[in-house]
Amino acid sequence: MYQYLTHKLRTCLAQRFFSSTTNSLINSRFLHSSPVVTNMSSTAGVVIPCKAAVAWEAGKPLVIERVEVAPPQEMEVRIKVKYTSLCHTDLYFWEAKGQTPLFPRIFGHEAAGIVESVGEGVSDLCVGDHVLPVFTGECGECAHCKSEESNMCDLLRIDTDRGVMHSDGKSRFSINGTPINHFVGTSTFSEYTVIHSGCLAKINPKAPMDKVCVLSCGISTGLGATLNVAKPKKGSIVAVFGLGAVGLAAAEGARIAGASRIIGIDLNPNRFEEAKKFGVTEFLNPKDFDVPIQKVIADVTNGGVDRSIECTGNINAMISAFECVHDGWGVAVLVGVPNKDAVFMTKPINLLNERTLKGTFFGNYKPRTDLPSVVEMYMNKQLELDKFITHRVPFSDINKAFDLMLKGEGLRCIISMED
Amino acid sequence: MYQYLTHKLRTCLAQRFFSSTTNSLINSRFLHSSPVVTNMSSTAGVVIPCKAAVAWEAGKPLVIERVEVAPPQEMEVRIKVKYTSLCHTDLYFWEAKGQTPLFPRIFGHEAAGIVESVGEGVSDLCVGDHVLPVFTGECGECAHCKSEESNMCDLLRIDTDRGVMHSDGKSRFSINGTPINHFVGTSTFSEYTVIHSGCLAKINPKAPMDKVCVLSCGISTGLGATLNVAKPKKGSIVAVFGLGAVGLAAAEGARIAGASRIIGIDLNPNRFEEAKKFGVTEFLNPKDFDVPIQKVIADVTNGGVDRSIECTGNINAMISAFECVHDGWGVAVLVGVPNKDAVFMTKPINLLNERTLKGTFFGNYKPRTDLPSVVEMYMNKQLELDKFITHRVPFSDINKAFDLMLKGEGLRCIISMED
Ligand SMILES: NC(=O)c1ccc[n+]([C@@H]2O[C@H](COP(=O)([O-])OP(=O)(O)OC[C@H]3O[C@@H](n4cnc5c(N)ncnc54)[C@H](O)[C@@H]3O)[C@@H](O)[C@H]2O)c1
Ligand SMILES: NC(=O)c1ccc[n+]([C@@H]2O[C@H](COP(=O)([O-])OP(=O)(O)OC[C@H]3O[C@@H](n4cnc5c(N)ncnc54)[C@H](O)[C@@H]3O)[C@@H](O)[C@H]2O)c1
Ligand SMILES: [Zn+2]
Ligand SMILES: [Zn+2]
Ligand SMILES: [Zn+2]
Ligand SMILES: [Zn+2]
Repeated sequence: MYQYLTHKLRTCLAQRFFSSTTNSLINSRFLHSSPVVTNMSSTAGVVIPCKAAVAWEAGKPLVIERVEVAPPQEMEVRIKVKYTSLCHTDLYFWEAKGQTPLFPRIFGHEAAGIVESVGEGVSDLCVGDHVLPVFTGECGECAHCKSEESNMCDLLRIDTDRGVMHSDGKSRFSINGTPINHFVGTSTFSEYTVIHSGCLAKINPKAPMDKVCVLSCGISTGLGATLNVAKPKKGSIVAVFGLGAVGLAAAEGARIAGASRIIGIDLNPNRFEEAKKFGVTEFLNPKDFDVPIQKVIADVTNGGVDRSIECTGNINAMISAFECVHDGWGVAVLVGVPNKDAVFMTKPINLLNERTLKGTFFGNYKPRTDLPSVVEMYMNKQLELDKFITHRVPFSDINKAFDLMLKGEGLRCIISMED
Repeated sequence: MYQYLTHKLRTCLAQRFFSSTTNSLINSRFLHSSPVVTNMSSTAGVVIPCKAAVAWEAGKPLVIERVEVAPPQEMEVRIKVKYTSLCHTDLYFWEAKGQTPLFPRIFGHEAAGIVESVGEGVSDLCVGDHVLPVFTGECGECAHCKSEESNMCDLLRIDTDRGVMHSDGKSRFSINGTPINHFVGTSTFSEYTVIHSGCLAKINPKAPMDKVCVLSCGISTGLGATLNVAKPKKGSIVAVFGLGAVGLAAAEGARIAGASRIIGIDLNPNRFEEAKKFGVTEFLNPKDFDVPIQKVIADVTNGGVDRSIECTGNINAMISAFECVHDGWGVAVLVGVPNKDAVFMTKPINLLNERTLKGTFFGNYKPRTDLPSVVEMYMNKQLELDKFITHRVPFSDINKAFDLMLKGEGLRCIISMED
């Protein structure tokens, strides 16, 4: 690890020297706003034309288009995306049912790529670095970034309604001069994309990008909800509500933490077969009972589970997830994003009896600080990722990934940019 | 400390020897259910006639009566009460508005006293020990007692509807053969009372009982809510909702923890003057604003407080106390006991933005394990108790303590049993 870092540092310094003597002259017309050039590749400072999957309208198939990707501005980085995968959040905003529609737009936020060039002021990333883009960032300066507990950066916190970059309120994507909107600051359904440097985690270059790309969002969210927030002790009983990718990642966290029982709860019994691979030991479908599922869980666990993690986005599941934890020590963690009108309700006695209720955002991981070590957990074989990857398609077939998700088939479909 | 413990042990052993050679013969007719006598005083094993303040009817003044107090049975202890104080919970059940009425009854649960005799099987307390009775107990054997986190003992958890002892479902109090109900297993408004040994904390005999008696309930509840549950870091901003004895004890906890600002919130502005003695630095009355108080708090704290502790029992205050904590790291702790129909409601986004909501019971103190060290905090001058004691009355004037509380005057009125 140390060797790899020092090697990177040398590369970084060499590139900086190179860039300041040659490229900066050649590309000077692109650089008037960046007098101090840091490090670059041969395409640095120039507009890159490349392929991107553009969503022109809500719910309509994406179209692979030739787009122009402008160079990164101050504190920004341009990366070459190698692999990306599809997450429900992409699908929700593409469908734009109840979400603010913003089109044309380039979706995509789970990915892995390589730094192509960096903008002014970027000092911790250089050309060739392997990175995971993240929909939320870490500026390092705000109260949240300085707090040990929070990962909700004031500057770079997710904003699903923004289609432009922070620095200048403009898009870096265009087609014949028409700007195309960004999505959550990542827009990884493009061969090249521009991302704020605070939204990029630098990872071990030996990590296989076609696997670790799933750590960009959903898998880390579920894993962190268990390991960073619920923190079950060895031997604990853990309930997981919702057995999609996020819930199964929460179960994977429970397995890693040494849970003695992992109870999976889902309305869809098709999810149970897949979940067996994730160490889920018992299954409960709320539809099979006349009483609230929290009562059923209390019955089979001598009063309640030690920890529960809600990964459904359904308000009833949130309430059940809270009320099914044991009094005295139970902790419930909410992960799912519910609809805007939902209200969480419970009798205060459920709290007074020493239960804890928490919510988490991106599994409480600080993207830049913490994601590299999650990649290492995979490299050490502590964390299993292969079982999350159920499908693979070439970039040209990206709409198949949407079809699979719409049909509820599989967990993660990896989209390979170079096939 | 060590010296004191070994001295106690010697006393205990001497008493045991004495009791098994003399008293057990004299009092043998009381002892048929206790073949192995442990340790005793001269009154051990006999019924003690003494004075007690009996509540004959809901809301009617207590009457000092001559009651007979039976000897302690298996795992029970009889104590001579030295000082007792009045807490709202006594008042609520005495008024019996919305509470199950159970009369005649001997109320009282905040007190300090001295062990007079112990029943069979009691090995950790002996005659002469100074003790604080607690309305909730610690059996030492159940899952809660074995958990590091919980103090909600399965066996000895508070049961306000029970008027009898666990072991035989009978009362130890009677007047001319008519049983008088116990209250929360303590009934300290009596010169002698019988208590389960799991509900008695053995304390430093040098501690002044007329002060530390208030640690039996409300003060420890508020103090522990802050120190054990909210756990503010040094320099934190802490909000306390409700500036009664419990809330002021929560503020005292915040002072001890080194909070930089303590914001007191109460509907009653009369509470603000007293609160200044407790390190409360700012005051807010929700009645003075047109917007919810959580918004006002967010405005004056750059986004919210680090910790909040709700000590009102009012559901709106509970919701405000939760919603006024900072996203990313804020923790809200509920202490107040609300009415049975109250429902806690909040938008899930308030949780998902990394806020934590917890409730506590008796400040998460394990009565036997933890209370002795709270007494030591007072002895070390870390914890200030004198400011909580605003009135004193002799036992014969116990109804004055009720009058003061009904008028909302002062915080704690100490009732001295020997005046
Ligand atoms: N907090 C974050 O940072 C973050 C990040 C990514 C995803 N999420 C959220 O996590 C949630 C799960 O994501 P996913 O991709 O795994 O979704 P998914 O749709 O694949 O899985 C959700 C599962 O929940 C089940 N479910 C729905 N209602 C239920 C109920 N009442 N009881 C039991 N099961 C129920 C569904 O049948 C489904 O299997 C979503 O709400 C998503 O928005 C949050
Ligand atoms: N959990 C436990 O173990 C435990 C133990 C003892 C007491 N308690 C509870 O703690 C609470 C406080 O006890 P206390 O003896 O200090 O009571 P108290 O009546 O002396 O004080 C409560 C204060 O809250 C204020 N208040 C009421 N509604 C309010 C609102 N909406 N906003 C702001 N302030 C409001 C009142 O004006 C009053 O000053 C009670 O509910 C009591 O039952 C709990
Ligand atoms: Zn930040
Ligand atoms: Zn996602
Ligand atoms: Zn117990
Ligand atoms: Zn009390």
